[in-house]
Amino acid sequence: MTSGVVGVTSGVGLPRVLEPVGVLPQAAWRLDARAELAADEVRVRVSRLNLDAASFRQLSVKHGGDGAAVRAEVLEIVGTRGKMHNPVTGSGGMLIGVVEEVGPESLLPVKAGDRVATLVSLTLTPLVIDDGLAGWDGLSEQVPASGHAILFGRSVVAVLPDDLSPELALAVFDVCGAPALVDRVVRGYSGDVSVTVLGGAGKSGSLALTAARLAGARTRAVVVSEAERSMVIDHGLADRVAVVDARDPVAVAEAFETPATVTVVCVDVPGCEHGAILATAAGGTVIFFSMATSFSAAALGAEGLAADVTMLVGNGFVPGHAAFALDVVRRTPAVRALFEARVSAH
Amino acid sequence: MTSGVVGVTSGVGLPRVLEPVGVLPQAAWRLDARAELAADEVRVRVSRLNLDAASFRQLSVKHGGDGAAVRAEVLEIVGTRGKMHNPVTGSGGMLIGVVEEVGPESLLPVKAGDRVATLVSLTLTPLVIDDGLAGWDGLSEQVPASGHAILFGRSVVAVLPDDLSPELALAVFDVCGAPALVDRVVRGYSGDVSVTVLGGAGKSGSLALTAARLAGARTRAVVVSEAERSMVIDHGLADRVAVVDARDPVAVAEAFETPATVTVVCVDVPGCEHGAILATAAGGTVIFFSMATSFSAAALGAEGLAADVTMLVGNGFVPGHAAFALDVVRRTPAVRALFEARVSAH
Repeated sequence: MTSGVVGVTSGVGLPRVLEPVGVLPQAAWRLDARAELAADEVRVRVSRLNLDAASFRQLSVKHGGDGAAVRAEVLEIVGTRGKMHNPVTGSGGMLIGVVEEVGPESLLPVKAGDRVATLVSLTLTPLVIDDGLAGWDGLSEQVPASGHAILFGRSVVAVLPDDLSPELALAVFDVCGAPALVDRVVRGYSGDVSVTVLGGAGKSGSLALTAARLAGARTRAVVVSEAERSMVIDHGLADRVAVVDARDPVAVAEAFETPATVTVVCVDVPGCEHGAILATAAGGTVIFFSMATSFSAAALGAEGLAADVTMLVGNGFVPGHAAFALDVVRRTPAVRALFEARVSAH
Repeated sequence: MTSGVVGVTSGVGLPRVLEPVGVLPQAAWRLDARAELAADEVRVRVSRLNLDAASFRQLSVKHGGDGAAVRAEVLEIVGTRGKMHNPVTGSGGMLIGVVEEVGPESLLPVKAGDRVATLVSLTLTPLVIDDGLAGWDGLSEQVPASGHAILFGRSVVAVLPDDLSPELALAVFDVCGAPALVDRVVRGYSGDVSVTVLGGAGKSGSLALTAARLAGARTRAVVVSEAERSMVIDHGLADRVAVVDARDPVAVAEAFETPATVTVVCVDVPGCEHGAILATAAGGTVIFFSMATSFSAAALGAEGLAADVTMLVGNGFVPGHAAFALDVVRRTPAVRALFEARVSAH
């Protein structure tokens, strides 16, 4: 196999697509997961899969909690599709492992022997499992596994740090696009910048708040309960906190006396678009990180409210985002403690 | 009635919401459409409604093309809801009329006697019809009507120009957010800027291309057919043209040798996100104007492709957008001819 494709689509894995031919790996029904590498590829020896929560839940419910049946179906999906791409939920997850071989033309920042986590979805990652998942009981999203996975030229992978537990690092990587993009957006404004984060008590929300503060902004959190308010206050995550239903546009808009320069939506429930728009000052920016965001609700909402705000689709990829997010956690003991508590609670 | 609400939510029409109380006018089931004005409101004497195409189609199909039945249902909707908000499609349309009264605290740029078009949706515009739509046969989206409509403090309204026909002006207003936002984004880059417009032959696409060129960018159009290619070339809308299916990410990415600084999606079909992302250079911007855009496909696609691109939800409101779009048309005879041909074909 050669890299085969040059130019704009180089490095996105097209030569690994078996059917239908010509689509991107994520859209493909079946990938070629053979171990032999193209010049810009990297092979990882897999040690664990982290299944996407929606995917695991669907499988577990389908099989009535029968772990052996869940395990058999995961093996069947990977065997059939050459990737762990749940055909019902459309979701995947990520994996950790050790770099086994690096193609001579790879530009990924890894070398053989590095312990890494993939930051692109399993839905586009060629994967072979060779241990029958014998070490997994099928009862958890955490799947001990042996096998190999392929990374493309344009893949995203992070080396696991020595000073933080893998579990902590993975929890941070899972939301690492948020702090990096918030940092970039906040630094694009000058003068007095205020940032409101809807869902400020969650994983991405707490990192977004912390990144905003480190970038010099005043920070405000909107949370859903008194318990979350206490948590935000106890950890000093934000300068101000309001307990408000993020789906109530009027309540969100009136949670603080003045609109924010930047509003960040980290609440994974539908219907938060209009509140975020109303809560943002003219000339400000709304960053939507929630996958529950409705494109049309955002577009038509801003138009209907005559709101001159820039609305960003929260891109989970910003160059250097994984290292940036780890650095935010290292620099902020309260956030590190928060993530450690979350990880150990699982 | 007084304006009632001050601060962040002032001017969005909350006092006009009858049920459920506390939601925004667009989300409301029923609005108060009484003629009496709050201090920041404006009343328009309606002369015509332009129903949203999806709404009219649904009504027409439902009633088997029976115009009288369609008319009766429109009257019933407006009578029940206090606005022309199709409960099935969720869509509305816009209206034209003459300003009848301006509240003393209104900041809208209109005065009594101005012939205006509303640029916010009928789904949030209080409306009373008082002629039973006697002048309408129920067979077209263009609805001659008599009645009144209410504009809020933060509404968007444009005065119809004297030098362009109302039909032409409305066709331009319908897509006027696109050229203004493209202009703003292109001018945010320095040096050599290239802009690719997916759907460059359509109304918003042709204005986006023209605005990009007027802002100094090199322009490239992706169109769906040879007929559209000829049209783009004959009217000189773009420097280069490619005939490609916008849903095919690989084909879109490879349509031109180099990625674009800015890619604008004006194709109203699902599945154009990944091609637009792939076709955009690192550090570039994708502007999604299509209501068929999937938020999650865009967010996950950019992440999966490790694409460092800024993705904008195409906000239909940019201050001055209506006047800007008319100016683009006036300055570009070929575009004006194109819009005139479209309008007269209807």
